[in-house]
Amino acid sequence: MTVPTGPTEATLPALLEEHARSRPEGLAVACGERLLSWSELRIEILQLARALHEAGIGPGDRVLWMGQNCHRVLEALAACAHLGATLCPVNWRQSSVELAFVLNDAEPKLVFWQDEEVGEVMLAARGAATTSARWIQLDGTGSRRGEESFAAFVEAPDLLPQGSCAVPEGAALMLYTGAFGGHPHGALLSNRALVTVGMANAMVRGLQPDDVFLNSGPLFHLGTWMCTLATYVLGATNVFVPRVDADLLLRVIADNRCTGAFLMPTTITDLVALNRSVRADLKSLRWPKSTPEWDAMVSFDDSPWARRPGGTGQTEVGGLATFAALGGEGLHGRPFPLIELRVVDAEGLDVPPDEVGEMIVRGPVVMNGYHNRPSLNVEKFRGGWYHTGDLARRHGDGSVTFIAPMSRMIKSAAENIYPAEVEACLRQHPLVRAAAVIGVPDERWAQSVKAIVVLEEGASIDATELIEFCRASIASYKKPRVVTFVAELPMRGYAIDYDSLDAVHGGGGYPGGGNRSA
Amino acid sequence: MTVPTGPTEATLPALLEEHARSRPEGLAVACGERLLSWSELRIEILQLARALHEAGIGPGDRVLWMGQNCHRVLEALAACAHLGATLCPVNWRQSSVELAFVLNDAEPKLVFWQDEEVGEVMLAARGAATTSARWIQLDGTGSRRGEESFAAFVEAPDLLPQGSCAVPEGAALMLYTGAFGGHPHGALLSNRALVTVGMANAMVRGLQPDDVFLNSGPLFHLGTWMCTLATYVLGATNVFVPRVDADLLLRVIADNRCTGAFLMPTTITDLVALNRSVRADLKSLRWPKSTPEWDAMVSFDDSPWARRPGGTGQTEVGGLATFAALGGEGLHGRPFPLIELRVVDAEGLDVPPDEVGEMIVRGPVVMNGYHNRPSLNVEKFRGGWYHTGDLARRHGDGSVTFIAPMSRMIKSAAENIYPAEVEACLRQHPLVRAAAVIGVPDERWAQSVKAIVVLEEGASIDATELIEFCRASIASYKKPRVVTFVAELPMRGYAIDYDSLDAVHGGGGYPGGGNRSA
Repeated sequence: MTVPTGPTEATLPALLEEHARSRPEGLAVACGERLLSWSELRIEILQLARALHEAGIGPGDRVLWMGQNCHRVLEALAACAHLGATLCPVNWRQSSVELAFVLNDAEPKLVFWQDEEVGEVMLAARGAATTSARWIQLDGTGSRRGEESFAAFVEAPDLLPQGSCAVPEGAALMLYTGAFGGHPHGALLSNRALVTVGMANAMVRGLQPDDVFLNSGPLFHLGTWMCTLATYVLGATNVFVPRVDADLLLRVIADNRCTGAFLMPTTITDLVALNRSVRADLKSLRWPKSTPEWDAMVSFDDSPWARRPGGTGQTEVGGLATFAALGGEGLHGRPFPLIELRVVDAEGLDVPPDEVGEMIVRGPVVMNGYHNRPSLNVEKFRGGWYHTGDLARRHGDGSVTFIAPMSRMIKSAAENIYPAEVEACLRQHPLVRAAAVIGVPDERWAQSVKAIVVLEEGASIDATELIEFCRASIASYKKPRVVTFVAELPMRGYAIDYDSLDAVHGGGGYPGGGNRSA
Repeated sequence: MTVPTGPTEATLPALLEEHARSRPEGLAVACGERLLSWSELRIEILQLARALHEAGIGPGDRVLWMGQNCHRVLEALAACAHLGATLCPVNWRQSSVELAFVLNDAEPKLVFWQDEEVGEVMLAARGAATTSARWIQLDGTGSRRGEESFAAFVEAPDLLPQGSCAVPEGAALMLYTGAFGGHPHGALLSNRALVTVGMANAMVRGLQPDDVFLNSGPLFHLGTWMCTLATYVLGATNVFVPRVDADLLLRVIADNRCTGAFLMPTTITDLVALNRSVRADLKSLRWPKSTPEWDAMVSFDDSPWARRPGGTGQTEVGGLATFAALGGEGLHGRPFPLIELRVVDAEGLDVPPDEVGEMIVRGPVVMNGYHNRPSLNVEKFRGGWYHTGDLARRHGDGSVTFIAPMSRMIKSAAENIYPAEVEACLRQHPLVRAAAVIGVPDERWAQSVKAIVVLEEGASIDATELIEFCRASIASYKKPRVVTFVAELPMRGYAIDYDSLDAVHGGGGYPGGGNRSA
């Protein structure tokens, strides 16, 4: 076998070089007043890479982004990839204590930080952390307290040609996720993973090179990056807004003729209400059927994705490992081709169809591992497969339904109870606004089911009545034994904070070697 | 950086395993009466892999397929990939002398051969070659002259579990191509290349997991494999017919509800004529606008590919490196994302927009190299890029137009003349049916242009009149100096055999270090 140079793979920097050749005048990014063609974006990225290189950033180093959305996040990602380094966009909504944990854990050599809106908490985190990183202020002139400014940082005297250090398996992006064990872990995603995530999402969503994606979701979540990367891989246009603001979104969608966006249902409600008076032209936006008023404002999307959106996965496997659009009776469809997925028992053997087991995944989208978690990585990658810690069922037609995180399975005697199922049942009651279910240790049954319920405003109901309501539609052993009413559920980002619920309401004794024990 | 198992890549065997899990009952292949689901296909492939393994086939070995199309070709490819070996489907339309060259050059350990229709020439080739391979007869019972039969060969006693030896960069498919230097070369395509070719074609053609592709083009050409692989990667259905026969095609398209097929324009003409009486239902087939009668028989395809089909490339870069569907003013569109393409001068420097240079390519679709051509491989891969030997021009918008193979550039003093351009001009004359242009050595001008022309039946025209016709529409230095009329042009497969024209009509003296000198 003759392999003179081997078959080479695409990396983020290689894609950038080609887009600058293939569509030099094509619009790559729009961010406020800034409009950059692919050839201009390439120059800005190489300038930033050069500045980072001069600051001592090289292969394996980490750079933190502690600010809101901006085209500079994409530039910093590509610049880091060019140097073989890793960019970590940090959740700027966190407290200074949480941010200080990330600073200490990520051990960055350099931090980009934003002053406006979030400066105080960023600097408090810096004060609390033991980091010795160089801090570059993204906005303003850096005059605040004598900080180094981004403008001065990237002002490189010239742009010497400099070959890329990017390798397919090199970690380019780190996202903190999965706070099992009490603290989040930094999932390292390679060039290969990011390029494949982009291809997969472009394909299932039927995106084209003339599409315009509005980055209106946070760039510290892979949920947004899935489309950002699809857009980047295709050589299409990424539009950035610093935060979700209905007035701004209406204007930016209309001005940039956006064809896609990251919009939560509540944002859509806001946009509909505001656009009754603003009357911005949103017809460029393609969207699945929603409410009549929204549908009338936008264009209908009949891509496979739009007909059956969503899927299941997690940051560690590139966001979505399965896509509902790929069909089947399972709620969450099938794995994207290139991804291998199995549902296994505790011994790692495939469970029969329709039985519940842990979902394990292998393929180009899977993370390299967590930063600085050697023993956890060994456990999560045992047998060469990434263990998601998520329970799923494979149907007879091979499609997949995600059930619940393993760590949240409750064991009552021999029965497995999935809180998600009980919660869904509780939420069907007209007086229930939100519900969370935990397991509390039980000497006789191992665990028993406890529901924490938020009622609609002004409503009242007996615990026994709610328990009877559940008994009527799910197996009796799944019904809550105890119901506690609260004013609101503790949240961590968009998800219920079950650790906090367990701590407050006596949860514990969960079965299996799931995430909880990590 | 923590890399417990690294990010893994998809291979043909890994895709097979996942399809058998994700769509166990989905129809994978149809071939005559044989219908195999993905789980059945997996078993047949593992059985074949086991038989090949017992026959001593392992990593780096080559297996030849010397027969017509059949689902067994796909099975043999996947089985070889499973073992780390390479399948080479050979052009069965070749003479025994050409086949003997391939046998000696490929040095296979095992040959699958077909008796019906092509048996005589296969056995003549075996007689003429020095190969010591084991020969397995695909059809019949192998009784002919005491040959080993395929049925007996795959009759493995049991199916022991056996891990795959497939690696992403391992050569799985070898196709003989590019007969520059007088003999063809075996281009080795890796798992990575084949999977990426499948993804690229699935994406640009907008294929879906429920598509049904009719393999009605030869499987010794990558032109067919582009869609076969797209279908395989998606987990859709591949239908096989042994050869192009209008009656058979009509029946197979209707019976299998084929949505795509490999059909040359002449075949479509035949299908239209025959279907006036057969009246087979071809509505499942999606096709770009063609003739009104054909359009009425099939369904309209409005995918990006159908709106602008084609592109440019060659077997060595996975078939098409650029797709017209990816837009731009260039005739051949833009490279598929993941593929890097440059247009360079003799020193390897990028030429300015609109200037002609050699197209060089890098990326996951590029071949590993030619089998057993070490010095040619070093030359073709100089600087880490594959040199196509094709001339192209990059337009201001970054899109690409293929001009002509370098080896066919004629040098008249300082001027470059591309035969393709002169031929296109000649063919516009109403009396010209076909035309080929060669360069003949010229003491004063280095080369001069000579046209070899086939006139329409019964037509006659003066050479001077044809030369004047050219002068009217292309630069004077490009017009032929001499025109020779012939009854027909020599062909090699579907292409004009320029080597033969040069030999017969005095061509030679071509410039540059192009393919010719290889």
